[in-house]
Amino acid sequence: MARGRTIDEIQIGDSASFAKTMTETDTYLFAGITGDLNPAHINQADSENNMFGGRIVHGMLCAGLLSAVLGMQLPGPGTIYVGQELAFKAAVKFGDTITATVTATEKVKGRFVKLETVCTNQDGTVVIDGTATVMPPKANE
Amino acid sequence: MARGRTIDEIQIGDSASFAKTMTETDTYLFAGITGDLNPAHINQADSENNMFGGRIVHGMLCAGLLSAVLGMQLPGPGTIYVGQELAFKAAVKFGDTITATVTATEKVKGRFVKLETVCTNQDGTVVIDGTATVMPPKANE
Repeated sequence: MARGRTIDEIQIGDSASFAKTMTETDTYLFAGITGDLNPAHINQADSENNMFGGRIVHGMLCAGLLSAVLGMQLPGPGTIYVGQELAFKAAVKFGDTITATVTATEKVKGRFVKLETVCTNQDGTVVIDGTATVMPPKANE
Repeated sequence: MARGRTIDEIQIGDSASFAKTMTETDTYLFAGITGDLNPAHINQADSENNMFGGRIVHGMLCAGLLSAVLGMQLPGPGTIYVGQELAFKAAVKFGDTITATVTATEKVKGRFVKLETVCTNQDGTVVIDGTATVMPPKANE
């Protein structure tokens, strides 16, 4: 399996993205595998009365799209995920198409790369923003 | 559906936790719903040669256990998830039992609660630590 990019192969400003339509199915599977059966995600009758007017996708599930871009594209395979800061800015409804984009912003101590991490919906609304810290693969890996 | 605790019903130091054994099945479902098919998670032949010596569970999937505690226990239903900082400290292998614990540490501006968020494995090793920021439900919700 080809490794991802080393720190020397990453330039500040490099960017990658992945888009996926988030569904009821995704949400119910995530509820099952995490135990997060919060009614906001799985109870239509109850959640119709909340501020979002119905069930919403888990924020942490959408954050998984950022993990996908980091682990598969930039830096890619061999990356060690060190940290992630997330700000949940807007709700994601079933059927929303979420684009996760990561952009390299800084190299730290010659070993770590910081990336701006943003998820937007089909209307361009930012639903998550934040910062990832990763350790890219070494050249000999 | 009963709502969770309001900010006035939460005391600094209040804590809640949830434990789950994380499996290959969980990991493959998460890979499918996020698109994170990083070989570290889904390729045994390749990942046997990496530093973890085999496939590991996605960090963001384990972070979902923290979302579960926040959304279902403390504060509980009606909580708005505002932000999460995560530091991934150790790998999670298939079969590891992860305990996610959240502890209220601070009230901010009378509207937000900060909680320390920690995931440990069956040996007591911290695999994730960080901080959550949430807006607890209002009394009339």
